[in-house]
Amino acid sequence: MQNRQVVVEKLPSEKLVCDNFKVRMGSMPKLSSGQVLVRTIAFAITAGARAGLQGSASYAGVAKTDVVMRGTGVGEVIASTNAHIPVGSKVLGPTGWQEYAALNTELLTLIPESCDPLKYIGPLGINGLAAYFGLLKAGRPIIGETVLVSSAAGSVGHFVGQMAKIIGCKVVGVTGGDSKGERLINELGFDAAVNYKSANFRKDLKLATPNGVDVYFDNTGGNILGSALFRLNVGGRIACCGVVSQYDTSSPDPGPRGIPGLLVNKRITMQGFLVFDYANEYQTARDEINKWVDSGKLFCWTDEVIGLDSAPEAFVDLLAGGNMGSRIVRLDRA
Amino acid sequence: MQNRQVVVEKLPSEKLVCDNFKVRMGSMPKLSSGQVLVRTIAFAITAGARAGLQGSASYAGVAKTDVVMRGTGVGEVIASTNAHIPVGSKVLGPTGWQEYAALNTELLTLIPESCDPLKYIGPLGINGLAAYFGLLKAGRPIIGETVLVSSAAGSVGHFVGQMAKIIGCKVVGVTGGDSKGERLINELGFDAAVNYKSANFRKDLKLATPNGVDVYFDNTGGNILGSALFRLNVGGRIACCGVVSQYDTSSPDPGPRGIPGLLVNKRITMQGFLVFDYANEYQTARDEINKWVDSGKLFCWTDEVIGLDSAPEAFVDLLAGGNMGSRIVRLDRA
Repeated sequence: MQNRQVVVEKLPSEKLVCDNFKVRMGSMPKLSSGQVLVRTIAFAITAGARAGLQGSASYAGVAKTDVVMRGTGVGEVIASTNAHIPVGSKVLGPTGWQEYAALNTELLTLIPESCDPLKYIGPLGINGLAAYFGLLKAGRPIIGETVLVSSAAGSVGHFVGQMAKIIGCKVVGVTGGDSKGERLINELGFDAAVNYKSANFRKDLKLATPNGVDVYFDNTGGNILGSALFRLNVGGRIACCGVVSQYDTSSPDPGPRGIPGLLVNKRITMQGFLVFDYANEYQTARDEINKWVDSGKLFCWTDEVIGLDSAPEAFVDLLAGGNMGSRIVRLDRA
Repeated sequence: MQNRQVVVEKLPSEKLVCDNFKVRMGSMPKLSSGQVLVRTIAFAITAGARAGLQGSASYAGVAKTDVVMRGTGVGEVIASTNAHIPVGSKVLGPTGWQEYAALNTELLTLIPESCDPLKYIGPLGINGLAAYFGLLKAGRPIIGETVLVSSAAGSVGHFVGQMAKIIGCKVVGVTGGDSKGERLINELGFDAAVNYKSANFRKDLKLATPNGVDVYFDNTGGNILGSALFRLNVGGRIACCGVVSQYDTSSPDPGPRGIPGLLVNKRITMQGFLVFDYANEYQTARDEINKWVDSGKLFCWTDEVIGLDSAPEAFVDLLAGGNMGSRIVRLDRA
């Protein structure tokens, strides 16, 4: 048995390209005590992983080459040294971009048998949990308020908008295309959508938020954040989830000019968060999100790509805004 | 009786200069029902007032010319239409830069007879209250944490550092001069001070904060904020009080590059605040601050200038960092 893997060949100095990765045939991992062997079913491709490839240290540590690309996936346990996670179990964990991984059990979440494992890299995974905790803990929206979200059709953003609708807010999404915006409105119930690539973006944003913005869920940073600052109301909150506008470049933009001046004038709170800090509350959140999904209140857009070898291109394309919803790579075993 | 006034002659387009103001002899204000006539004893000069002279609207509204320069002062009531504020009372209120003002009583704070009125434009005034509420509500320091404050020898900053010491924090001040820093350490008990004008500022800041920074009280924005971001610990808080580095210019700098990326990585919260939002809690705060002052725990540096005509130069000098502590203009009546 062999273990196909996507490894980081060289770190990107400018925009990420497929040549930053290579596919290699690795050896089958050996189990240590307390570990289980997981056969990957699918893994998630997330924009935040691009930050992990930047030369300087991100929260995930310094970027390295010649290692399996990191990522969160779901898989089936095919060998186990832990009686609580028997062979046949489905688990969520840091599989990386490879067919097989030996994983410490404390890093794993056991997926209930009744549940489609793919839900755990969608609404019940990091994407859904980031939307949930970022919106509730950092955004703190109140019924009737206006919530603005960037990368609104992305893996996190499309959940954020729907969750804000469930709370009873007016929801405006910022996307990179008009057709994405139409789908947010028609399929997910967003109240309005604005295309940040339009020459009239600032004007369009103003028209779409006649009562201003109370909560801005920021997945992008950069110019969209700068524009949102001007629409925020007194007492507004910004949930800082990601900075996708600045990941895929060697020359990041300066910060928005309105910081900190507009924060003072409008008594705005900006709060950065990482979903991992809420691990103690994952189960409660998953229970609530799962109810929303099962009752048809929350839709999950899954943007599925087939085959491990497709992962680099799927990642490059995602950074250019090519995905709708949660992009996952499902491994084929023909 | 005449009323000497400093009026805004023209709005500054670059750095503020004395010629932006002129002194004129105005007429004595006439009392309307519910008003009292106040003879100004002294008023405070604050950096934030420079923001009010910027062409665009600040929280105080659009800047205007040919109006008395706005400012908070203390004075004696010399005529009254309100039985609760009799002639002879001392009050705090929006006197502006003038000898006499007719003021609506709801804008006034009655100063207890036992209290030196100047305290109300020092530790019990906007300066002291901004330090108190900004530190406690937005900074939320915990005993043992490190608090960093910019404009540390300024009207707000010198209180912030002392209040953080009272709470039991380690305190580091950023100032524009080594002698200011020495006085913060020797006279006010700061643990360390760093000169932002030094070529080694970032290195000095690092050395002065070996355990990082948990709370940054930001009076400056700009490069000092950008440098502080790199020293903030995970879970750090930034209390955004003012942006003095950006007030006195027609070409403000862009925002710090680390925003929002470092906010996410380090789960930092930035909170802008205006002291006026805490008006309901002023009395409680004043009681506590007054105890600190009377027991010798909190010192007030008062940087007094004599004579209404001195106000423009005192303001220009303050924006260049010429003050130590609360700068006030005391009116003389020779």
